[in-house]
Amino acid sequence: MSQQLFSYDQLYQFSKQVFLKIGCSEADADTAAKVLVSADIRGIDSHGVARLTGYVRLWEAKRVNAIPNIQIIHETPSTATLDGDVGLGLVVAPKAMQIAIDKAKNVGTGWVSVGNSNHFGIAGYHAMMALDHDMIGIAMTNASALVAPTFSIEKMLGTNPIAVAIPAKEQPAFVADFATTTASNGKLEILQRKNAEAPLGWVQDKDGNATTNASALKQQGAMLPLGGDRDHGSHKGYALGSIVDIFSAVLSGGSYGPWAPPFPAYIAMPENMPGKGLGHFFGAMRVDAFRPAEEFKQHMDNWISRFRDAKPASGQNKVLIPGDPEREMETERMNNGIPVIDAVVADLKTLEDKLGVKLL
Amino acid sequence: MSQQLFSYDQLYQFSKQVFLKIGCSEADADTAAKVLVSADIRGIDSHGVARLTGYVRLWEAKRVNAIPNIQIIHETPSTATLDGDVGLGLVVAPKAMQIAIDKAKNVGTGWVSVGNSNHFGIAGYHAMMALDHDMIGIAMTNASALVAPTFSIEKMLGTNPIAVAIPAKEQPAFVADFATTTASNGKLEILQRKNAEAPLGWVQDKDGNATTNASALKQQGAMLPLGGDRDHGSHKGYALGSIVDIFSAVLSGGSYGPWAPPFPAYIAMPENMPGKGLGHFFGAMRVDAFRPAEEFKQHMDNWISRFRDAKPASGQNKVLIPGDPEREMETERMNNGIPVIDAVVADLKTLEDKLGVKLL
Repeated sequence: MSQQLFSYDQLYQFSKQVFLKIGCSEADADTAAKVLVSADIRGIDSHGVARLTGYVRLWEAKRVNAIPNIQIIHETPSTATLDGDVGLGLVVAPKAMQIAIDKAKNVGTGWVSVGNSNHFGIAGYHAMMALDHDMIGIAMTNASALVAPTFSIEKMLGTNPIAVAIPAKEQPAFVADFATTTASNGKLEILQRKNAEAPLGWVQDKDGNATTNASALKQQGAMLPLGGDRDHGSHKGYALGSIVDIFSAVLSGGSYGPWAPPFPAYIAMPENMPGKGLGHFFGAMRVDAFRPAEEFKQHMDNWISRFRDAKPASGQNKVLIPGDPEREMETERMNNGIPVIDAVVADLKTLEDKLGVKLL
Repeated sequence: MSQQLFSYDQLYQFSKQVFLKIGCSEADADTAAKVLVSADIRGIDSHGVARLTGYVRLWEAKRVNAIPNIQIIHETPSTATLDGDVGLGLVVAPKAMQIAIDKAKNVGTGWVSVGNSNHFGIAGYHAMMALDHDMIGIAMTNASALVAPTFSIEKMLGTNPIAVAIPAKEQPAFVADFATTTASNGKLEILQRKNAEAPLGWVQDKDGNATTNASALKQQGAMLPLGGDRDHGSHKGYALGSIVDIFSAVLSGGSYGPWAPPFPAYIAMPENMPGKGLGHFFGAMRVDAFRPAEEFKQHMDNWISRFRDAKPASGQNKVLIPGDPEREMETERMNNGIPVIDAVVADLKTLEDKLGVKLL
């Protein structure tokens, strides 16, 4: 697959110009571009500029409001519920996370459920906002239904990711960020493009049978919850995805389960939606709400180095800490550029004419 | 396998007498017995009376303090850190959960990290305490290291379960309670007794190879994180188990990772423990801290019935909601008795002589 190299700044500037052109404020365009390109720089290519035209199409379809009035509609000292006013999730999410952080400053922890929003980029970005404040950050979101519960052939849940960021002292932070499915949709798309087979346990066909057909999802099949099948604990992945759905959308008044709004603008909105838009859920916990921050972070250093030193299996170099691969990728790409495949470059270039912005 | 039937009350009374005999107060013995036997009645046989002699052996080895002085050692309006004073986790955990509930009453949510504790029975019991208060309950615990991280052959994490209980209105509550491994150790033990093979993905051998040998764990092998292997998302199960370990033991000052104290009293305590005892983590969130409780519970009813109606795969009757199997088991066993296998009955009878209590 042919590709082109871009610097972080090129992708950031281009994305920011695009968000300005659709009417975002200077501050919101800056935030949205930072969140979006944080995916590319960390190696999660499926969630970065590859989605930029998708966001623009949502705006064209009037499913995204570029100048949202994001409001707290319910709160307590440690919680808030936000109405995202159909804003870009890329903008709504950092505002919500900031509210969680502010509440944590006051009462130890802060928890914010958000409805009436849209796709928010990578969960990890938002969770990591907590790190600078010596807080543990948590972020999750529901998403368009692609996943069948255990024993079902109906797509009821999104890939519903969870991110948890935990600060350390000398060691880099622990940053887990993962879909609650066996594999992400991004990985599946890579196999589809290559016409390669998927490992059993990633998808099922329209009758609920295990299949290695990476395109099964487009043939009335479904993605599978983490675990893959009942014998391998798919009921646990199904429970995790459900918890994300409920915290994000039932708590907030968002639209949940099979009624979550689709990301592709050409797919009609679900009928009889029980709530508004996508939902997210954020948490921030001050570590010094539990023990002195220095003490906690020293023990996190100890935790991380002990796990890094765990005896590797033969053929493996080392045991990784959640966040290691993305951080190494970030260093690599900051130094050497971000490869963007030709199909995505062509896609981005359609925005040049449409919005009068220049990619390079 | 031959077995004997007991009523809930028989197992509860016997367990309570045992806890009284080792010196627990009347109230603590009552709580400990209720938590313990809640596992048997819900069908999680590995965590019920099958473990009673194990708790007694821990007490004999002076690793359990029957009259603990459980203290809050750090707190904010929404958080607390507890020192369990080497108490039975069965007693420490409900006290901690009650503190989380009380904090949630005041500021919307409550979060309690507990160190210097012991095994706490089933996580679901503690999470479900929140339901009567129209709160979402969360419970997790670290445990003796049996699980190898992705790419490793060293046992670094316990089966580290997570439970989340969410109230509904007419529908029964959503109650997820699962180990962050592919399969629980209890299920593995059943296969070992039958000399049956385990599905690939449950355990690995001492060199880190996939194996169907259910006894691999006893032959220097290890249990595997949910996902099983890297291709099937084991790094996600590893991350989840790690988050449970850190929230439970690094936040609280407990002993984490490979240093978590073992449940079997004959296994020596780890050297150079970085903290005290096992750790747990509890959360309680008032649903009306996010939206009116009635509204939330109506939407939960809608969520639950929509998922229950999801189209089943061929050969499957229906889609289950987390908590369905345990609730059905509870009804069944309350009516017809709790089967206890002969090996466990014999084990319990050793307590008759030792402590002068009568099983039937």
